[in-house]
Amino acid sequence: MAKKVRRPGAVGEGTHGQDGRLTDTKTRDKIEAMARMVVEQIDRADNPTLNIPVRSLSNVAFNEKKGIIEMGDGKAARPFFDLGNARRFMQTMLMSSELLKLQQQHKTTSIRDMFYHCKHTIEGAREETFDEQEESDPVIEDLEVTLGALREELRIFANPEGSMVGPMTIRDTGDEIELSRMGSGGWAVPSIVEPHVIQFVKSEAKFILLIEKAAIWMRFNEDRFWKTHQCMIIHGGGQPPRGVRRLCHRMANELGLPLYVLVDNDPWGYYIYSVVRQGSINLAFESSRMAVPAARFIGMSSFDAAEFDLSASVTIRLNDKDIVRAKEIMAYPWFADKRWQREIKHMLKQGVKLELEALSNKDFSFIADTYVPEKLKKRKWLD
Amino acid sequence: MAKKVRRPGAVGEGTHGQDGRLTDTKTRDKIEAMARMVVEQIDRADNPTLNIPVRSLSNVAFNEKKGIIEMGDGKAARPFFDLGNARRFMQTMLMSSELLKLQQQHKTTSIRDMFYHCKHTIEGAREETFDEQEESDPVIEDLEVTLGALREELRIFANPEGSMVGPMTIRDTGDEIELSRMGSGGWAVPSIVEPHVIQFVKSEAKFILLIEKAAIWMRFNEDRFWKTHQCMIIHGGGQPPRGVRRLCHRMANELGLPLYVLVDNDPWGYYIYSVVRQGSINLAFESSRMAVPAARFIGMSSFDAAEFDLSASVTIRLNDKDIVRAKEIMAYPWFADKRWQREIKHMLKQGVKLELEALSNKDFSFIADTYVPEKLKKRKWLD
Repeated sequence: MAKKVRRPGAVGEGTHGQDGRLTDTKTRDKIEAMARMVVEQIDRADNPTLNIPVRSLSNVAFNEKKGIIEMGDGKAARPFFDLGNARRFMQTMLMSSELLKLQQQHKTTSIRDMFYHCKHTIEGAREETFDEQEESDPVIEDLEVTLGALREELRIFANPEGSMVGPMTIRDTGDEIELSRMGSGGWAVPSIVEPHVIQFVKSEAKFILLIEKAAIWMRFNEDRFWKTHQCMIIHGGGQPPRGVRRLCHRMANELGLPLYVLVDNDPWGYYIYSVVRQGSINLAFESSRMAVPAARFIGMSSFDAAEFDLSASVTIRLNDKDIVRAKEIMAYPWFADKRWQREIKHMLKQGVKLELEALSNKDFSFIADTYVPEKLKKRKWLD
Repeated sequence: MAKKVRRPGAVGEGTHGQDGRLTDTKTRDKIEAMARMVVEQIDRADNPTLNIPVRSLSNVAFNEKKGIIEMGDGKAARPFFDLGNARRFMQTMLMSSELLKLQQQHKTTSIRDMFYHCKHTIEGAREETFDEQEESDPVIEDLEVTLGALREELRIFANPEGSMVGPMTIRDTGDEIELSRMGSGGWAVPSIVEPHVIQFVKSEAKFILLIEKAAIWMRFNEDRFWKTHQCMIIHGGGQPPRGVRRLCHRMANELGLPLYVLVDNDPWGYYIYSVVRQGSINLAFESSRMAVPAARFIGMSSFDAAEFDLSASVTIRLNDKDIVRAKEIMAYPWFADKRWQREIKHMLKQGVKLELEALSNKDFSFIADTYVPEKLKKRKWLD
């Protein structure tokens, strides 16, 4: 049965922009409020100062209860009248003013574009506002945490990568798109999938299968796995980009869909799963809007080679880097669960890793016809 | 006016497979013919021998008349009863037999999958059929040239990358898709876009704009450039992958659409354009089905900084690698035209390169509102 989906998030928060598209005024308000605060400081003849949340490891912790990596409350002052801070203060104000223009013009752009957009020689000086993009990127990150706005809410996109198909109808920038009629290519997941851009119109999906590799996703699409199993299949071309993670988060939360993650059996596969589940240290401030703590690791597991009787020919010996990384991962508090310790220890003991492609040694469609269906049926996953 | 598009290529060449999808029996016939030839050699008690076209630089030339890079007639014998060739002969026969299964099962897969699929310990020996993927990839390439079949016709896909939107309706694996209603994400261009997979149903497009970078494509999509200018916009996330090149080739040839290429102004941008136009040395045997000799280089040109009055702030000094590469490119016979020599010399003389994003220094939408429209209007391109 198709279920009508309530229009999420955007409703109430958004308004219709000039272009008829839903827009989000929340972020504009936040930028303006920050600017007003600085003006007031100047009016009071105070030293204009921004308080920027600290984005280093020291200010990050794993919240066991919520199951996500979170940023703490640490902040650092950035005063204007201070030799070490004046340039960065100027850059922060310049960048916020240009970000506000993006909001007003209902446009989105890339961090590289913002660098070029803001770069100029300061009038009457021989100084550039920004010398390198390495200077402008952290300023955007500062503003994300200071304003409490996701990069997507600032209307900054990352390179899109990834595709999705399945029994669902969405609305993307006003276009209604039936994701069950997308051929072999699928719908390209954009970088910004916030509620004012993407709305869920109708869904018959029972779960989401997030697949690490594009090539494996193509196998599942060609075999119409999503039809047989009534699910969404999505990939992000390796480590899933922000758009794919955010979309999984939204589908899990707004549509109540369980999320299964299918990755290679190696430390990098475990890591991809962990970022999807509880976020990463670098982007801790976004976990609550990106992570899916209920995500299930459906494979490949280090026990699969024996379980599915795979030939030793298709396993690959762990190299030194794999072993070091596996041990690091075992030490993360979010892998402390004894089933995870057992999983990773077993990989180290066997001394080999396994790629999803190895399953094709059995048959081209073994992965979609047998492997995943059996895992689902026997409830063989880790979470 | 929408024009109905005749169903290309596939009709006549294809038949309906078990799954109701159009399939291509041509490639299956070619594999079987090769196998039959080997069996006949064995029946005659000859030394079974394959003649494999040579894929090295020595066997490649630029065909000025056709405007594409082509492979010559050089072939090398691969006899079975020969110590240096026996293993490779076995691998070639094994791989063709498994490629035939792909044809029979109407499936597609990746080169990595084929490696795993074919890998096993030879019965009664301690030898593996393939040790590394580095061994199986060249065997697939050998078969492409020997059979005269594109990789896509062998049903082998590459990682898909890239998106397309515009006033066109296509059929992809049976699904009719309106490319003017694809929201912000677009239709993900699959790796295999052969006529039995993708058919052009209806087109109102007047030209194709191939954009180097995903981020810039998003600007053109957000600004609905394809609507205002009645064109297809497509990107391949950097160097366009095979699917994107082949699709541009098909649209240019079957629909008669001019192709404009928009890249950074640096040696790598020139090179991307040249691969789109006449193919590459490595893949010379595919040029006739991938290259678009009439492709137009619409920018960025080394004369654009002055032409569009761009700030010196947004240019980047050429580094040593850029300079070496630019000189190499100037020496290619396909850049011998004096307008191209002038273009590249001017870049070297200015000593700077320019990224597409640099145009956003003027305004976020300068590139889509002013730059490209002006180039088109004034017919300022190179070909």
